[in-house]
Amino acid sequence: MPVDRTRLLLDTTKRLLRRGASVHLHKIVNKTHAADLAVVFRFLTLREQETLFDLMDTIEQKAMFFSEVEEEMLVKLIEDMPAEKIAEILEQMPNDDVADLLGKLSDDRAKALLDLMTKEESEEVEGLLRYDEQTAGGIMLPDFIALKEETTARGAIEALQKEYVDVEMPFYLYVVDDHANLVGVISLRQLVVVPPETRLKSIMATDVVSVQTNTDQEEVARIVARYNVLAVPVVNENNKLVGIVTVDDVIDIIREEATEDILKMAGAGEDLVESQSILKSTRIRLPWLLASWIGGVIAFFIIGHFESSLNKLIYLAAFIPIIMGMGGNIGTQSSTIVVRGLATGRLNLNEIWRVVLKELMIGFLLGFFYGVLLGFVVHFRYDVMLLGVTVGLAVISSMTIAAMVGSLVPMVFARINIDPAVATGPFVTTSIDILSVFFYFQIATMLLRL
Amino acid sequence: MPVDRTRLLLDTTKRLLRRGASVHLHKIVNKTHAADLAVVFRFLTLREQETLFDLMDTIEQKAMFFSEVEEEMLVKLIEDMPAEKIAEILEQMPNDDVADLLGKLSDDRAKALLDLMTKEESEEVEGLLRYDEQTAGGIMLPDFIALKEETTARGAIEALQKEYVDVEMPFYLYVVDDHANLVGVISLRQLVVVPPETRLKSIMATDVVSVQTNTDQEEVARIVARYNVLAVPVVNENNKLVGIVTVDDVIDIIREEATEDILKMAGAGEDLVESQSILKSTRIRLPWLLASWIGGVIAFFIIGHFESSLNKLIYLAAFIPIIMGMGGNIGTQSSTIVVRGLATGRLNLNEIWRVVLKELMIGFLLGFFYGVLLGFVVHFRYDVMLLGVTVGLAVISSMTIAAMVGSLVPMVFARINIDPAVATGPFVTTSIDILSVFFYFQIATMLLRL
Repeated sequence: MPVDRTRLLLDTTKRLLRRGASVHLHKIVNKTHAADLAVVFRFLTLREQETLFDLMDTIEQKAMFFSEVEEEMLVKLIEDMPAEKIAEILEQMPNDDVADLLGKLSDDRAKALLDLMTKEESEEVEGLLRYDEQTAGGIMLPDFIALKEETTARGAIEALQKEYVDVEMPFYLYVVDDHANLVGVISLRQLVVVPPETRLKSIMATDVVSVQTNTDQEEVARIVARYNVLAVPVVNENNKLVGIVTVDDVIDIIREEATEDILKMAGAGEDLVESQSILKSTRIRLPWLLASWIGGVIAFFIIGHFESSLNKLIYLAAFIPIIMGMGGNIGTQSSTIVVRGLATGRLNLNEIWRVVLKELMIGFLLGFFYGVLLGFVVHFRYDVMLLGVTVGLAVISSMTIAAMVGSLVPMVFARINIDPAVATGPFVTTSIDILSVFFYFQIATMLLRL
Repeated sequence: MPVDRTRLLLDTTKRLLRRGASVHLHKIVNKTHAADLAVVFRFLTLREQETLFDLMDTIEQKAMFFSEVEEEMLVKLIEDMPAEKIAEILEQMPNDDVADLLGKLSDDRAKALLDLMTKEESEEVEGLLRYDEQTAGGIMLPDFIALKEETTARGAIEALQKEYVDVEMPFYLYVVDDHANLVGVISLRQLVVVPPETRLKSIMATDVVSVQTNTDQEEVARIVARYNVLAVPVVNENNKLVGIVTVDDVIDIIREEATEDILKMAGAGEDLVESQSILKSTRIRLPWLLASWIGGVIAFFIIGHFESSLNKLIYLAAFIPIIMGMGGNIGTQSSTIVVRGLATGRLNLNEIWRVVLKELMIGFLLGFFYGVLLGFVVHFRYDVMLLGVTVGLAVISSMTIAAMVGSLVPMVFARINIDPAVATGPFVTTSIDILSVFFYFQIATMLLRL
C-alpha cells in the first residue's frame, strides 16, 4: 500500500474510532494486511490499539499482526492480556518472531508463556533464545527443509506436501548427510523440472554458502546481498544445519543497521525514538552532547590563553565562526565517506594510510580554495595584507587537519574494533573545533606579532 | 565469503598477478563466485582487471561477472573490447542488467551493441531503457511467469519445464486475464502441493500487491520490505503486467539509498567516491562547502557589528566556539532524526508541528542543562554573576533554535518535494551558526549593558 493510501487508512480508522463505529472498524481490521495495520497502530493511543486488536476475528490473524508490529509497541499492548490468550497466538507465529518478543519480556513472563506453549514449540523457541540477538543464531528460522542425498525428486515433493507443510520459506531444499551436516542445496524450481526419479544427490549444488550461528547479523546481510540468495543456511559449531536466515529478515537488518549508523554518526543514540516521550528523548541525547560541551570549554581556555593577542586585534574574534565551520564541515564529509565506505565494504582497512593521505590532500586543496578566497575578502575589507594571509592560512590549516582527523579517527576505531560510526559524531567535530581554534590563534600571534 | 576470506583472495590474486602465474590465476578466476571476483576487481588496476577477465573460460561466466561488477568499472573494462564480443556476453545476461549497463554507455555505442543482439533480446532491453532508471520500470525484470486462470497445476509445471526455463525468479506465478491484466498470484510452493488437476483460478490469491512502471524505486523497496515478498509485479498504465522487481534488487536499492542519504546529509555528494581521483573528489565536495563559507562570512559581519561590545568585554569571544558547537550538534541530531524518520516512513509529514514542537522542547531542556552547567563554570571562574547568566542564556537560546531549525527545515523541504537529506548538511548547520552567534551577542549587549 503506497504511503498516501496508508495515510487514508489511518485517517479513516481514527475517524471511525472517534465515532465508535465498530461495524466499520471490524471490517477494516479484518480486511487490511497485517503489515499495514502495524503502520496504522504506530499512530494510535494504547486504548485505541486495544479496541482495534479485540476486533480481529481469528487467532491466525492476531499471530500475523504480532509478527508485523514493532516489539516495543507489542510489549505494551499485551501487558494486561491473560497469558493463555497470548500463548495461543504465539503458537501460530514463526518461532524466530516468538523468540524476539520473549526476549523483550521479563524472564518470569517469558517463562510463564513458554510453559503454556506445546513442548515442541517451546523447545524450539528456547533454543533460539540461547543465541545473541544480533547473530545468525538469533535471527534464524528453525524451520527448514532437510532431506537425504538418496531422496528422489518425487519423494522430496511428497515430503513438502506432508512433513514440511508449515515451513515458511520453502524455496530451497537443503541436503544433509547422516550426521545432519549440510552437504548440498536444491531450489524448489529445479525439483519440479527434473524427472520424478532423479536423486537429489545428482542435481544438488555442493558449494553452499553458509554462516555459523555466531556470525554477526551484518555479515549475514552482506552475504545474502552479495550472493543474491533468498535464504542462507545456518550451521552450528559441528557443521550441523540448525536454521536458515531468510531474505525478508535481511532487509529489515539492512534498514536497521543503516538507521543505526546514521543516528550514531549524528550522536543521536542508536534507535529512532520519535515515539519516545520528550523526557526520554532528552535523556538519550544528553550524553552525546557532553563531548561537544567539554570541547567548547577547552576552546574557551585556549582563546583565553591568547587573550593578549585578542586584546590587540579585536576583530580576530570575528573569524572564529568561519574557521570552525569550514573545519567542521569538511571533517564531517571525510568521516562520513570513510564510515560508509567501511560499512559497505568498499573501503579496505589495510589501506588506512592511502585513504588518510588522500583525504589530507583533498582537505588541503579545498582549504587552499576557500582560504585564498577569504584572504582576498579580508584584504580588501581591511587593507591589511598580513591579516588576510593569517585567516587564509588558518582556513587551510583547519581544513587540512579536519580532513585528516575526520578520516583517521574512524579508521583507527574500526581497526581496534570500535564501531566507527560512533567516532564520527561529536567526537570528531569537537576535536576539530579545538584544533582549528588553537592553530588559528597560533598563526595569528606569530604572523601579526601580537 | 566472509570479509577476511575475501581479503585473502585479494592478496593471493595480487601476488599471482605480480608473478604472472597464469595457471594459478586461471584456476582462481574459474572457481570463484562472480560476486567475490567483483569485489576483488575493485582493488585492481585496469591492466590487472583485463588480464583476469581474459582468463575466464565461458561466456556464461563472463555474463555472470558482468551482472555482479559495478557499472562504472565495467564501462572502463569494456572500452577497448570489440562490440561483437560484448554483445555475445550481453545476450546471456538478465535484461535489466543489460539495460543498466547500456544506459551508462554513449548512445552510439549502446545502439551498436543492441544491433548486434538478437531481435527479441534487444527489443526487451529497449523497452526497459524507456523507463527512468530510478523507477519500477527501470529496475524490473521483463522475465516472469504469466499463466491463464484456467491453467491446471500440472499445466503450470509443464510450462515451467518448457516455456519458462530461463526465468530468473520462478517462485511466484502470476495469473493474467485475456487482456494480460494481472488478476492473481500463486507461489511455486502451492503449485507442488495441490492435486495436478487443480485450476489456478481456485487457488490463486487475488489481493496482489503491485506497483506501476513509474513508481519510485524507494517506494518499491518499502513495499517489498513491508509485505515480506520475494518479488512485486509491475503493471503499466493499462494494468497490463510488464515485469517484476525481485528482492535481490530491492536489497541493493535499500543499501544505495541509505548510502546516498548519509552522504547527502554530510554534504559529501551522492555517490561513494573512494575510487575517484583527488581532483575529482575535490570538485564534487567543493560546492557543498560554499554554504558554510558564506555563513562564516555573515557571522563575521555580525560579530563586527558588535565590535564595541566585544572591545569592552574581550573574553566574550572565548565563548563563541561552545555556543556554536552546542547549537550545531543538537541541530544535527534533530535533523538526522527527522530525515531518517521520513525515509523509513516512521515520521508523518502531516505531523510537522507536533514534531517541531517536540524537538523545540527537547532542545530547550538540553540547552537548560548544558547552559546552566556552563553558567556555573563561568560564574566561578570570573565571579561575574551576569556573565554566567549571559552565556547560560546564549547556550539555551542557541540549542532551542538549533533543534527547531534542524527539525523544521527538512520537514518543510520534504513538504515541497525537495529531498530532505540535502537540507541537513551544510545548510542547516550554517543557519544555526549564524543565528547562534547573533543571539549570543544580542543577549550579551543587553544584559551586560555593553
